[in-house]
Amino acid sequence: MKAPVDIVVTGAAGQISYSLLFRLAAGELLGADQPIVLRLLEITPALPALRGVVMELNDCAYPLLHKIVVTDQPRIAFAGVDYAFLVGAKPRNQGMLRSDLLQQNAEIFAVQGKALNEVANRNVKVLVTGNPANTNALIAIKNAPDLAPDCFAAMTMLDHTRAVSLLAGKCGVSTTDIKNVTVWGNHSCTQYPDLHHARVKGAEALSLVENDWFVNEFIPTVQYRGAEIIKARGQSSAASAANAAIAHMRTIVHGTADGDWVSMAVASDGSYGIAEGLVFSFPVTVAAGRINIVKGLDINDFSLQRLRNNETELQEEREAIRYLL
Amino acid sequence: MKAPVDIVVTGAAGQISYSLLFRLAAGELLGADQPIVLRLLEITPALPALRGVVMELNDCAYPLLHKIVVTDQPRIAFAGVDYAFLVGAKPRNQGMLRSDLLQQNAEIFAVQGKALNEVANRNVKVLVTGNPANTNALIAIKNAPDLAPDCFAAMTMLDHTRAVSLLAGKCGVSTTDIKNVTVWGNHSCTQYPDLHHARVKGAEALSLVENDWFVNEFIPTVQYRGAEIIKARGQSSAASAANAAIAHMRTIVHGTADGDWVSMAVASDGSYGIAEGLVFSFPVTVAAGRINIVKGLDINDFSLQRLRNNETELQEEREAIRYLL
Repeated sequence: MKAPVDIVVTGAAGQISYSLLFRLAAGELLGADQPIVLRLLEITPALPALRGVVMELNDCAYPLLHKIVVTDQPRIAFAGVDYAFLVGAKPRNQGMLRSDLLQQNAEIFAVQGKALNEVANRNVKVLVTGNPANTNALIAIKNAPDLAPDCFAAMTMLDHTRAVSLLAGKCGVSTTDIKNVTVWGNHSCTQYPDLHHARVKGAEALSLVENDWFVNEFIPTVQYRGAEIIKARGQSSAASAANAAIAHMRTIVHGTADGDWVSMAVASDGSYGIAEGLVFSFPVTVAAGRINIVKGLDINDFSLQRLRNNETELQEEREAIRYLL
Repeated sequence: MKAPVDIVVTGAAGQISYSLLFRLAAGELLGADQPIVLRLLEITPALPALRGVVMELNDCAYPLLHKIVVTDQPRIAFAGVDYAFLVGAKPRNQGMLRSDLLQQNAEIFAVQGKALNEVANRNVKVLVTGNPANTNALIAIKNAPDLAPDCFAAMTMLDHTRAVSLLAGKCGVSTTDIKNVTVWGNHSCTQYPDLHHARVKGAEALSLVENDWFVNEFIPTVQYRGAEIIKARGQSSAASAANAAIAHMRTIVHGTADGDWVSMAVASDGSYGIAEGLVFSFPVTVAAGRINIVKGLDINDFSLQRLRNNETELQEEREAIRYLL
């Protein structure tokens, strides 16, 4: 049997984690021959509920689940971890200003960045799903100066698969027939799901759908999908977010398919004129565990405007929490 | 690509299904090269919430998820299905008598049995998890006279893995070191988790643990685990129940490991003196999709008394709904 791999999940008693943990323990990330240690972080008041989740994990008698660590201490949670799912974040309450939301979360991710910096595996792969995910990831990066920035990403995989699914439905094809969709920018309603380079069974997507559908239906549907789910279910997306988190990390482990890319929010290297350091969703390929921004794509004025809008929003978010950088 | 396999899940907007559907769509039951059709049944008032779940399933862009059918009509849901997860059941409300619970659920499973009888694949594998699961399965069997009774089982896999996990923890070994645990009888607090034939790394389990622990801790802990989870989480077991449902069906698909067995509640053939036809949890092996009750185990007086208690309880349940058989 291989040595166990340590995986940490924060906000482990929450709804996304409830959909995530049992799939990790079943081997969906690292396969059926790789034992894992689950390291579960929660705030102190949520530890009793988390113990209930741990009872359920134990009840499954997972052959691959070597050990479970439960803690409210980031330094214990992150010790020696190879994969980090930063799911926990403070939700926006009624009457809360966006700046308050940014700052309260920023403090959480500053603490977690410092702890990762001190105790995580030097090759740790960190995925931030807790919102505002891009700026939370930025704070974690800045607080972990001894870890390479490309250890970190914020999740736009759910936006990406939503875009793929919507295009496949429109064209009446399988989702596997869709390639090179991109979600640019911030994981917020400003995000820009882009079909200019997308292909449907090899044909240019925008030659197959009306421009009006692309601009007035496709883009806003992807942007506001989260709110639609809440309206239908009465709760926010949990199982699909957990699925996207697994898909993101599986892409890190297994790489992207030849000729295709996915969307991940990573520290900008200045590509497409996006201010360096901002955590921005780009088209990326992954090989040997390294994330590479796809370079040199043609960006027309329509797209450029939307990239700029995202850059501006992310710069404003950064200003609101600059004291923590 | 293979032809899709049809899988139905009832109570599809509920919590267990929310943990189940995304794992089925990810290929956890039938593997990464088998497309599936998910056929989702709900009661009419739950269809709007179910549509939210379907949005999330679509958002995952699962390569294996060929189609989703949403309906409140059992005959549509069960058409041509190969695997049926009967998850939906009426929960017991405050002040509801056990006999009312039995009868209201019995009517649901009578309708579903008739629909399976009419339209399901003749080799369908049906798993009842909705409680009271054993008697619900009995009703479904009796209302599906054209399907072989061994198409049907009620789930005691969660009780089984709870027992395995508890023994592994006590002995400080991995769950994979535990063999031949049995849960006998009814999926209720009367169930009898039995270690008389269990082995821990090849040694007799009852030679390794004190009898007092077996009788006064192990047995009641497994019997009342569901209530403990509710106390800790504030909600009943959903993810672990979904996991057990997948484990049960995977066992049907892949068979049991050499030298081991699992627990499933199936129509009694009179083994161990249990009245024929009662749906009773036995130790079973599975090969080529067929469930075989393990015969000829020594049953001492301690165990026999507990088997009888389960038989009596199940006979009483059957009496309460006899008009539907």
